Amino acid sequence: MGEARPLRIVLVAPRNPLNIGAAARAMSNFGFSELRLVNPYQVAFREARSAVKAHQVLRDAREYATLAEAVEDCVLVVGTTSRGPRALEHTLRRLERGGKLIASRLAKAPVALLFGSEKFGLSNDDMSHCHWLLRIPTREEHGSMNLGQAVALCLYEIVRTPAAARAQPEPRRPPAKAGDLERMTALLQELLEASGYVHARTGESTRMKIRRLVRRMGLSAHDAEVWLGMLRQVRWKLLS
Amino acid sequence: MGEARPLRIVLVAPRNPLNIGAAARAMSNFGFSELRLVNPYQVAFREARSAVKAHQVLRDAREYATLAEAVEDCVLVVGTTSRGPRALEHTLRRLERGGKLIASRLAKAPVALLFGSEKFGLSNDDMSHCHWLLRIPTREEHGSMNLGQAVALCLYEIVRTPAAARAQPEPRRPPAKAGDLERMTALLQELLEASGYVHARTGESTRMKIRRLVRRMGLSAHDAEVWLGMLRQVRWKLLS
Repeated sequence: MGEARPLRIVLVAPRNPLNIGAAARAMSNFGFSELRLVNPYQVAFREARSAVKAHQVLRDAREYATLAEAVEDCVLVVGTTSRGPRALEHTLRRLERGGKLIASRLAKAPVALLFGSEKFGLSNDDMSHCHWLLRIPTREEHGSMNLGQAVALCLYEIVRTPAAARAQPEPRRPPAKAGDLERMTALLQELLEASGYVHARTGESTRMKIRRLVRRMGLSAHDAEVWLGMLRQVRWKLLS
Repeated sequence: MGEARPLRIVLVAPRNPLNIGAAARAMSNFGFSELRLVNPYQVAFREARSAVKAHQVLRDAREYATLAEAVEDCVLVVGTTSRGPRALEHTLRRLERGGKLIASRLAKAPVALLFGSEKFGLSNDDMSHCHWLLRIPTREEHGSMNLGQAVALCLYEIVRTPAAARAQPEPRRPPAKAGDLERMTALLQELLEASGYVHARTGESTRMKIRRLVRRMGLSAHDAEVWLGMLRQVRWKLLS
Protein backbone atom coordinates (compact mmCIF):
# COMPACT_ATOMS: atom_id res chain seq x y z
CA MET A 1 0.00 0.00 0.00
CA GLY A 2 2.65 2.48 -0.92
CA GLU A 3 5.66 1.06 0.98
CA ALA A 4 7.68 1.12 -2.20
CA ARG A 5 6.51 4.56 -3.28
CA PRO A 6 9.40 7.00 -3.16
CA LEU A 7 7.60 9.95 -1.61
CA ARG A 8 9.71 12.19 0.60
CA ILE A 9 7.73 14.15 3.16
CA VAL A 10 9.77 17.26 3.86
CA LEU A 11 8.97 19.38 6.92
CA VAL A 12 10.60 22.78 6.68
CA ALA A 13 11.50 24.34 10.03
CA PRO A 14 8.92 22.49 12.13
CA ARG A 15 8.64 23.79 15.71
CA ASN A 16 6.32 21.41 17.55
CA PRO A 17 7.36 17.87 18.51
CA LEU A 18 3.72 16.74 18.51
CA ASN A 19 3.33 17.78 14.91
CA ILE A 20 6.52 16.04 13.86
CA GLY A 21 5.25 12.92 15.63
CA ALA A 22 1.80 13.23 14.03
CA ALA A 23 3.33 13.54 10.57
CA ALA A 24 5.39 10.39 11.18
CA ARG A 25 2.35 8.52 12.46
CA ALA A 26 0.27 9.40 9.41
CA MET A 27 3.15 8.27 7.18
CA SER A 28 3.22 4.94 8.98
CA ASN A 29 -0.58 4.66 8.71
CA PHE A 30 -0.44 5.07 4.96
CA GLY A 31 2.76 3.19 4.26
CA PHE A 32 5.31 5.92 3.58
CA SER A 33 8.70 5.94 5.23
CA GLU A 34 10.90 8.82 4.10
CA LEU A 35 10.64 11.75 6.45
CA ARG A 36 13.06 14.65 5.94
CA LEU A 37 13.41 17.69 8.15
CA VAL A 38 14.97 20.92 7.04
CA ASN A 39 16.42 22.98 9.80
CA PRO A 40 14.01 21.74 12.49
CA TYR A 41 13.83 23.33 15.90
CA GLN A 42 16.33 21.02 17.59
CA VAL A 43 14.51 20.65 20.89
CA ALA A 44 11.35 19.62 19.02
CA PHE A 45 13.12 17.04 16.88
CA ARG A 46 14.89 15.49 19.87
CA GLU A 47 11.70 15.43 21.90
CA ALA A 48 9.67 13.84 19.10
CA ARG A 49 12.34 11.20 18.53
CA SER A 50 12.61 10.29 22.17
CA ALA A 51 8.86 9.95 22.67
CA VAL A 52 7.89 6.52 23.93
CA LYS A 53 5.68 5.81 20.96
CA ALA A 54 8.02 7.24 18.31
CA HIS A 55 7.56 5.37 15.06
CA GLN A 56 10.22 3.79 12.93
CA VAL A 57 9.55 6.57 10.44
CA LEU A 58 10.62 9.14 12.99
CA ARG A 59 13.69 7.23 14.09
CA ASP A 60 14.79 7.01 10.44
CA ALA A 61 14.03 10.67 9.72
CA ARG A 62 16.93 12.61 8.21
CA GLU A 63 17.91 16.16 8.85
CA TYR A 64 19.12 18.70 6.29
CA ALA A 65 20.54 22.17 6.61
CA THR A 66 18.91 23.46 3.43
CA LEU A 67 15.84 22.67 1.40
CA ALA A 68 17.93 22.27 -1.76
CA GLU A 69 19.78 19.34 -0.17
CA ALA A 70 16.59 17.75 1.11
CA VAL A 71 15.00 17.57 -2.34
CA GLU A 72 18.12 16.98 -4.42
CA ASP A 73 17.16 13.45 -5.56
CA CYS A 74 13.54 14.28 -6.47
CA VAL A 75 12.19 14.82 -9.97
CA LEU A 76 9.09 16.61 -8.76
CA VAL A 77 8.94 19.03 -5.82
CA VAL A 78 5.49 20.12 -4.64
CA GLY A 79 4.81 22.64 -1.89
CA THR A 80 1.68 22.90 0.23
CA THR A 81 0.03 26.21 1.02
CA SER A 82 -3.18 27.56 2.44
CA ARG A 83 -2.86 30.79 0.48
CA GLY A 84 -5.15 31.53 -2.44
CA PRO A 85 -3.96 31.71 -6.04
CA ARG A 86 -3.82 35.51 -6.02
CA ALA A 87 -0.86 35.71 -3.68
CA LEU A 88 1.25 33.17 -5.55
CA GLU A 89 3.70 33.13 -8.41
CA HIS A 90 3.15 29.39 -8.84
CA THR A 91 0.69 27.05 -10.44
CA LEU A 92 -1.74 26.07 -7.67
CA ARG A 93 -3.68 22.80 -7.72
CA ARG A 94 -6.40 21.48 -5.43
CA LEU A 95 -5.51 18.35 -3.49
CA GLU A 96 -8.05 16.18 -5.35
CA ARG A 97 -6.21 16.75 -8.61
CA GLY A 98 -2.69 17.39 -7.33
CA GLY A 99 -2.74 14.17 -5.32
CA LYS A 100 -3.47 12.17 -8.46
CA LEU A 101 -0.62 13.86 -10.34
CA ILE A 102 1.78 13.06 -7.50
CA ALA A 103 0.61 9.45 -7.36
CA SER A 104 1.21 8.97 -11.07
CA ARG A 105 4.69 10.54 -10.93
CA LEU A 106 5.57 8.42 -7.88
CA ALA A 107 5.17 5.30 -9.96
CA LYS A 108 8.33 6.30 -11.81
CA ALA A 109 10.53 8.53 -9.71
CA PRO A 110 10.99 10.22 -6.33
CA VAL A 111 8.72 13.11 -5.43
CA ALA A 112 9.09 15.57 -2.54
CA LEU A 113 6.07 17.03 -0.79
CA LEU A 114 6.91 20.07 1.35
CA PHE A 115 5.18 21.43 4.43
CA GLY A 116 6.18 24.75 5.96
CA SER A 117 6.49 25.68 9.60
CA GLU A 118 3.37 25.76 11.76
CA LYS A 119 3.42 29.51 12.08
CA PHE A 120 4.47 30.81 8.68
CA GLY A 121 4.05 28.01 6.18
CA LEU A 122 6.52 27.85 3.29
CA SER A 123 8.43 31.03 2.54
CA ASN A 124 8.64 32.48 -0.96
CA ASP A 125 12.21 31.20 -1.04
CA ASP A 126 11.03 27.67 -0.15
CA MET A 127 8.33 27.86 -2.81
CA SER A 128 10.84 28.82 -5.48
CA HIS A 129 12.18 25.25 -5.20
CA CYS A 130 8.76 23.86 -6.14
CA HIS A 131 7.43 22.85 -9.54
CA TRP A 132 3.93 23.67 -8.37
CA LEU A 133 1.85 24.12 -5.22
CA LEU A 134 -0.93 22.12 -3.62
CA ARG A 135 -3.90 23.44 -1.68
CA ILE A 136 -6.19 21.46 0.58
CA PRO A 137 -9.74 22.66 -0.17
CA THR A 138 -10.44 24.26 3.20
CA ARG A 139 -12.77 27.23 3.72
CA GLU A 140 -11.35 30.55 2.64
CA GLU A 141 -12.25 32.06 6.02
CA HIS A 142 -10.23 29.40 7.84
CA GLY A 143 -7.74 27.88 5.48
CA SER A 144 -4.77 27.15 7.69
CA MET A 145 -4.64 23.56 8.86
CA ASN A 146 -2.80 21.79 11.64
CA LEU A 147 0.47 20.40 10.26
CA GLY A 148 -0.13 16.78 11.26
CA GLN A 149 -3.63 16.87 9.79
CA ALA A 150 -2.40 18.43 6.55
CA VAL A 151 0.20 15.67 6.11
CA ALA A 152 -2.44 13.00 6.79
CA LEU A 153 -4.85 14.48 4.22
CA CYS A 154 -2.24 14.66 1.47
CA LEU A 155 -1.12 11.08 2.06
CA TYR A 156 -4.71 9.86 2.14
CA GLU A 157 -5.45 11.51 -1.19
CA ILE A 158 -2.32 9.93 -2.69
CA VAL A 159 -3.21 6.37 -1.58
CA ARG A 160 -6.95 6.92 -2.05
CA THR A 161 -8.33 4.25 -4.39
CA PRO A 162 -11.95 4.75 -5.31
CA ALA A 163 -11.72 1.62 -7.45
CA ALA A 164 -10.93 -0.50 -4.40
CA ALA A 165 -13.89 1.01 -2.59
CA ARG A 166 -16.16 0.24 -5.52
CA ALA A 167 -14.76 -3.27 -5.87
CA GLN A 168 -15.54 -3.90 -2.22
CA PRO A 169 -18.92 -5.62 -2.43
CA GLU A 170 -21.66 -3.93 -0.51
CA PRO A 171 -21.83 -6.38 2.36
CA ARG A 172 -25.13 -8.18 2.43
CA ARG A 173 -26.36 -10.72 4.90
CA PRO A 174 -28.57 -13.46 3.41
CA PRO A 175 -32.10 -12.10 3.44
CA ALA A 176 -34.98 -13.70 5.32
CA LYS A 177 -37.27 -16.09 3.46
CA ALA A 178 -40.92 -15.16 3.00
CA GLY A 179 -41.98 -18.10 5.13
CA ASP A 180 -40.18 -16.74 8.17
CA LEU A 181 -41.55 -13.25 7.57
CA GLU A 182 -45.06 -14.66 7.41
CA ARG A 183 -44.52 -16.68 10.61
CA MET A 184 -43.35 -13.47 12.23
CA THR A 185 -46.38 -11.61 10.95
CA ALA A 186 -48.70 -14.22 12.44
CA LEU A 187 -46.93 -14.26 15.78
CA LEU A 188 -46.99 -10.48 16.01
CA GLN A 189 -50.68 -10.36 15.25
CA GLU A 190 -51.37 -13.03 17.83
CA LEU A 191 -49.52 -10.99 20.43
CA LEU A 192 -51.21 -7.75 19.49
CA GLU A 193 -54.63 -9.39 19.74
CA ALA A 194 -53.78 -11.08 23.03
CA SER A 195 -52.57 -7.81 24.50
CA GLY A 196 -55.60 -5.87 23.27
CA TYR A 197 -53.72 -3.65 20.83
CA VAL A 198 -55.97 -4.88 17.99
CA HIS A 199 -59.27 -6.69 17.95
CA ALA A 200 -59.63 -10.15 16.47
CA ARG A 201 -62.54 -9.02 14.33
CA THR A 202 -60.50 -6.42 12.43
CA GLY A 203 -58.26 -9.37 11.59
CA GLU A 204 -57.63 -9.29 7.89
CA SER A 205 -56.86 -5.59 7.44
CA THR A 206 -54.61 -5.66 10.50
CA ARG A 207 -52.84 -8.72 9.13
CA MET A 208 -52.05 -6.84 5.95
CA LYS A 209 -50.76 -3.82 7.82
CA ILE A 210 -48.52 -5.99 9.96
CA ARG A 211 -47.36 -7.96 6.92
CA ARG A 212 -46.27 -4.77 5.20
CA LEU A 213 -44.64 -3.48 8.38
CA VAL A 214 -42.61 -6.68 8.73
CA ARG A 215 -41.52 -6.63 5.06
CA ARG A 216 -40.35 -3.04 5.39
CA MET A 217 -37.88 -4.15 8.06
CA GLY A 218 -35.63 -5.65 5.37
CA LEU A 219 -34.63 -8.44 7.74
CA SER A 220 -31.75 -10.83 7.23
CA ALA A 221 -32.38 -14.57 7.68
CA HIS A 222 -30.51 -14.46 10.96
CA ASP A 223 -32.36 -11.45 12.33
CA ALA A 224 -35.71 -12.98 11.34
CA GLU A 225 -34.84 -16.03 13.44
CA VAL A 226 -33.95 -13.82 16.38
CA TRP A 227 -37.27 -12.02 16.04
CA LEU A 228 -39.20 -15.29 15.86
CA GLY A 229 -37.47 -16.49 19.02
CA MET A 230 -38.27 -13.29 20.88
CA LEU A 231 -41.89 -13.21 19.78
CA ARG A 232 -42.41 -16.89 20.67
CA GLN A 233 -41.04 -16.23 24.11
CA VAL A 234 -43.34 -13.28 24.67
CA ARG A 235 -46.30 -15.33 23.43
CA TRP A 236 -45.41 -18.09 25.83
CA LYS A 237 -45.29 -15.66 28.74
CA LEU A 238 -48.42 -13.84 27.71
CA LEU A 239 -50.63 -16.86 26.98
CA SER A 240 -49.45 -19.39 29.52
CA MET B 1 -18.77 24.87 1.72
CA GLY B 2 -20.84 22.68 3.98
CA GLU B 3 -21.86 25.25 6.62
CA ALA B 4 -25.45 24.17 6.24
CA ARG B 5 -24.73 20.47 6.26
CA PRO B 6 -26.17 18.92 9.39
CA LEU B 7 -23.27 16.64 10.29
CA ARG B 8 -22.76 16.01 14.00
CA ILE B 9 -19.22 15.00 14.90
CA VAL B 10 -19.55 12.94 18.08
CA LEU B 11 -16.47 12.23 20.17
CA VAL B 12 -17.11 9.44 22.64
CA ALA B 13 -15.11 9.66 25.87
CA PRO B 14 -12.20 11.71 24.47
CA ARG B 15 -9.26 12.05 26.86
CA ASN B 16 -6.83 14.48 25.26
CA PRO B 17 -7.55 18.21 25.02
CA LEU B 18 -5.24 18.53 22.01
CA ASN B 19 -7.30 15.97 20.12
CA ILE B 20 -10.56 17.68 20.99
CA GLY B 21 -9.05 20.94 19.78
CA ALA B 22 -7.72 19.34 16.59
CA ALA B 23 -11.14 17.86 15.81
CA ALA B 24 -12.73 21.30 16.25
CA ARG B 25 -10.09 22.93 14.07
CA ALA B 26 -10.62 20.44 11.23
CA MET B 27 -14.38 21.03 11.48
CA SER B 28 -13.81 24.76 11.13
CA ASN B 29 -11.41 24.18 8.21
CA PHE B 30 -14.06 22.22 6.32
CA GLY B 31 -17.13 24.18 7.35
CA PHE B 32 -18.84 21.99 9.93
CA SER B 33 -20.02 23.33 13.25
CA GLU B 34 -21.78 20.73 15.39
CA LEU B 35 -19.39 19.08 17.81
CA ARG B 36 -20.86 16.77 20.45
CA LEU B 37 -18.98 15.10 23.26
CA VAL B 38 -20.23 12.06 25.11
CA ASN B 39 -18.89 11.71 28.59
CA PRO B 40 -15.60 13.50 27.90
CA TYR B 41 -12.78 13.53 30.40
CA GLN B 42 -13.76 16.78 32.13
CA VAL B 43 -10.27 18.14 32.58
CA ALA B 44 -9.59 17.65 28.87
CA PHE B 45 -12.80 19.34 27.78
CA ARG B 46 -12.21 22.32 30.07
CA GLU B 47 -8.62 22.63 28.96
CA ALA B 48 -9.49 22.45 25.25
CA ARG B 49 -12.21 25.06 25.69
CA SER B 50 -10.03 27.46 27.56
CA ALA B 51 -7.17 27.24 25.05
CA VAL B 52 -6.26 30.63 23.64
CA LYS B 53 -6.97 29.59 20.08
CA ALA B 54 -10.16 27.63 20.81
CA HIS B 55 -12.47 27.81 17.84
CA GLN B 56 -16.08 28.82 17.81
CA VAL B 57 -16.85 25.16 17.08
CA LEU B 58 -15.31 24.19 20.41
CA ARG B 59 -17.02 26.93 22.35
CA ASP B 60 -20.37 25.78 20.95
CA ALA B 61 -19.66 22.08 21.58
CA ARG B 62 -22.34 20.29 23.58
CA GLU B 63 -21.89 17.60 26.17
CA TYR B 64 -24.03 14.49 26.62
CA ALA B 65 -24.13 11.83 29.29
CA THR B 66 -24.98 9.02 26.88
CA LEU B 67 -24.42 8.25 23.24
CA ALA B 68 -28.15 7.64 22.71
CA GLU B 69 -28.88 11.26 23.67
CA ALA B 70 -26.08 12.62 21.48
CA VAL B 71 -27.44 11.00 18.31
CA GLU B 72 -31.15 11.21 19.05
CA ASP B 73 -31.97 13.64 16.23
CA CYS B 74 -29.95 11.85 13.52
CA VAL B 75 -31.36 9.61 10.81
CA LEU B 76 -28.03 7.96 10.09
CA VAL B 77 -25.42 7.06 12.70
CA VAL B 78 -22.01 5.96 11.43
CA GLY B 79 -19.15 4.78 13.62
CA THR B 80 -15.46 4.86 12.75
CA THR B 81 -13.14 1.96 13.46
CA SER B 82 -9.66 0.77 12.61
CA ARG B 83 -10.63 -2.87 13.08
CA GLY B 84 -10.95 -5.22 10.15
CA PRO B 85 -14.25 -6.68 8.97
CA ARG B 86 -13.62 -10.01 10.70
CA ALA B 87 -14.00 -8.65 14.18
CA LEU B 88 -17.23 -6.79 13.52
CA GLU B 89 -20.93 -7.51 13.55
CA HIS B 90 -21.56 -4.49 11.36
CA THR B 91 -21.42 -3.57 7.73
CA LEU B 92 -18.01 -1.98 7.19
CA ARG B 93 -17.34 0.51 4.40
CA ARG B 94 -14.12 2.14 3.26
CA LEU B 95 -13.96 5.91 3.64
CA GLU B 96 -13.92 6.54 -0.14
CA ARG B 97 -17.36 4.98 -0.47
CA GLY B 98 -18.77 5.65 3.00
CA GLY B 99 -17.95 9.34 2.72
CA LYS B 100 -20.03 9.61 -0.44
CA LEU B 101 -22.98 7.87 1.22
CA ILE B 102 -22.80 10.25 4.17
CA ALA B 103 -22.57 13.29 1.87
CA SER B 104 -25.68 12.23 -0.03
CA ARG B 105 -27.68 11.57 3.17
CA LEU B 106 -26.57 14.91 4.61
CA ALA B 107 -28.33 16.70 1.80
CA LYS B 108 -31.61 15.62 3.38
CA ALA B 109 -31.23 14.98 7.09
CA PRO B 110 -28.88 15.02 10.07
CA VAL B 111 -26.13 12.42 10.24
CA ALA B 112 -23.89 11.56 13.20
CA LEU B 113 -20.31 10.44 12.72
CA LEU B 114 -18.81 8.84 15.84
CA PHE B 115 -15.20 8.63 16.97
CA GLY B 116 -14.19 6.53 19.96
CA SER B 117 -11.69 7.33 22.69
CA GLU B 118 -8.01 7.59 21.76
CA LYS B 119 -7.10 4.42 23.58
CA PHE B 120 -9.96 2.02 22.92
CA GLY B 121 -11.95 3.34 19.99
CA LEU B 122 -15.69 2.73 20.00
CA SER B 123 -16.94 -0.05 22.28
CA ASN B 124 -19.24 -2.77 21.03
CA ASP B 125 -21.99 -1.02 22.94
CA ASP B 126 -21.24 2.27 21.12
CA MET B 127 -21.20 0.44 17.79
CA SER B 128 -24.62 -1.08 18.43
CA HIS B 129 -26.02 2.45 17.98
CA CYS B 130 -24.60 2.61 14.46
CA HIS B 131 -26.24 1.79 11.16
CA TRP B 132 -22.85 0.92 9.72
CA LEU B 133 -19.15 1.48 10.25
CA LEU B 134 -16.49 3.40 8.39
CA ARG B 135 -12.84 2.49 7.98
CA ILE B 136 -10.05 4.77 6.84
CA PRO B 137 -7.90 2.73 4.44
CA THR B 138 -4.74 2.61 6.56
CA ARG B 139 -2.22 -0.24 6.49
CA GLU B 140 -3.33 -3.37 8.30
CA GLU B 141 -0.06 -3.42 10.25
CA HIS B 142 -0.68 0.10 11.55
CA GLY B 143 -4.34 0.89 11.29
CA SER B 144 -4.96 3.07 14.32
CA MET B 145 -4.93 6.77 13.56
CA ASN B 146 -4.59 9.86 15.68
CA LEU B 147 -8.08 11.13 16.58
CA GLY B 148 -7.65 14.64 15.18
CA GLN B 149 -6.24 13.28 11.93
CA ALA B 150 -9.07 10.74 11.60
CA VAL B 151 -11.69 13.48 11.98
CA ALA B 152 -9.89 15.63 9.37
CA LEU B 153 -9.75 12.77 6.86
CA CYS B 154 -13.45 11.92 7.18
CA LEU B 155 -14.48 15.55 6.77
CA TYR B 156 -12.18 15.98 3.78
CA GLU B 157 -13.70 12.96 2.07
CA ILE B 158 -17.20 14.31 2.72
CA VAL B 159 -16.49 17.74 1.21
CA ARG B 160 -14.13 16.35 -1.43
CA THR B 161 -15.31 17.44 -4.88
CA PRO B 162 -13.38 15.89 -7.73
CA ALA B 163 -15.62 17.79 -10.13
CA ALA B 164 -14.44 21.11 -8.71
CA ALA B 165 -10.84 19.97 -9.12
CA ARG B 166 -11.49 18.97 -12.72
CA ALA B 167 -13.39 22.17 -13.41
CA GLN B 168 -10.42 24.15 -12.11
CA PRO B 169 -8.58 24.95 -15.34
CA GLU B 170 -5.03 23.72 -15.42
CA PRO B 171 -3.36 27.08 -14.95
CA ARG B 172 -1.41 28.02 -18.03
CA ARG B 173 0.72 31.04 -18.60
CA PRO B 174 0.66 32.31 -22.17
CA PRO B 175 3.37 30.42 -24.03
CA ALA B 176 6.35 32.09 -25.68
CA LYS B 177 6.16 32.93 -29.37
CA ALA B 178 8.54 31.21 -31.79
CA GLY B 179 10.19 34.52 -32.61
CA ASP B 180 11.35 34.99 -29.03
CA LEU B 181 12.53 31.40 -28.83
CA GLU B 182 14.56 31.89 -31.99
CA ARG B 183 16.05 35.15 -30.68
CA MET B 184 16.99 33.28 -27.55
CA THR B 185 18.56 30.48 -29.60
CA ALA B 186 20.67 32.99 -31.54
CA LEU B 187 21.79 34.81 -28.41
CA LEU B 188 22.72 31.59 -26.70
CA GLN B 189 24.74 30.43 -29.66
CA GLU B 190 26.51 33.76 -29.85
CA LEU B 191 27.46 33.47 -26.18
CA LEU B 192 28.61 29.89 -26.52
CA GLU B 193 30.80 30.79 -29.49
CA ALA B 194 32.19 33.88 -27.78
CA SER B 195 33.03 31.86 -24.68
CA GLY B 196 34.64 29.05 -26.66
CA TYR B 197 32.08 26.39 -25.75
CA VAL B 198 31.37 25.81 -29.46
CA HIS B 199 33.27 26.74 -32.60
CA ALA B 200 31.76 29.03 -35.17
CA ARG B 201 32.52 26.57 -37.94
CA THR B 202 30.29 23.82 -36.42
CA GLY B 203 27.59 26.48 -36.56
CA GLU B 204 24.59 24.93 -38.22
CA SER B 205 24.47 21.61 -36.33
CA THR B 206 25.06 23.46 -33.05
CA ARG B 207 22.31 25.89 -33.90
CA MET B 208 19.88 23.00 -34.32
CA LYS B 209 20.88 21.44 -31.01
CA ILE B 210 20.42 24.73 -29.18
CA ARG B 211 17.13 25.34 -30.97
CA ARG B 212 15.77 21.99 -29.77
CA LEU B 213 17.13 22.58 -26.27
CA VAL B 214 15.35 25.92 -26.05
CA ARG B 215 12.06 24.49 -27.35
CA ARG B 216 12.15 21.71 -24.77
CA MET B 217 12.13 24.33 -22.01
CA GLY B 218 8.42 24.90 -22.58
CA LEU B 219 8.83 28.60 -21.77
CA SER B 220 6.03 31.03 -21.08
CA ALA B 221 6.05 34.38 -22.89
CA HIS B 222 7.09 36.10 -19.68
CA ASP B 223 9.90 33.69 -18.89
CA ALA B 224 11.22 33.94 -22.46
CA GLU B 225 11.48 37.71 -22.00
CA VAL B 226 13.36 37.21 -18.75
CA TRP B 227 15.77 34.84 -20.50
CA LEU B 228 16.31 37.25 -23.37
CA GLY B 229 17.12 40.03 -20.91
CA MET B 230 19.59 37.85 -19.02
CA LEU B 231 21.33 36.62 -22.16
CA ARG B 232 21.60 40.13 -23.62
CA GLN B 233 23.20 41.34 -20.45
CA VAL B 234 25.74 38.51 -20.47
CA ARG B 235 26.50 39.23 -24.14
CA TRP B 236 27.03 42.89 -23.37
CA LYS B 237 29.46 42.03 -20.59
CA LEU B 238 31.22 39.36 -22.57
CA LEU B 239 31.64 41.24 -25.84
CA SER B 240 32.10 44.81 -24.70
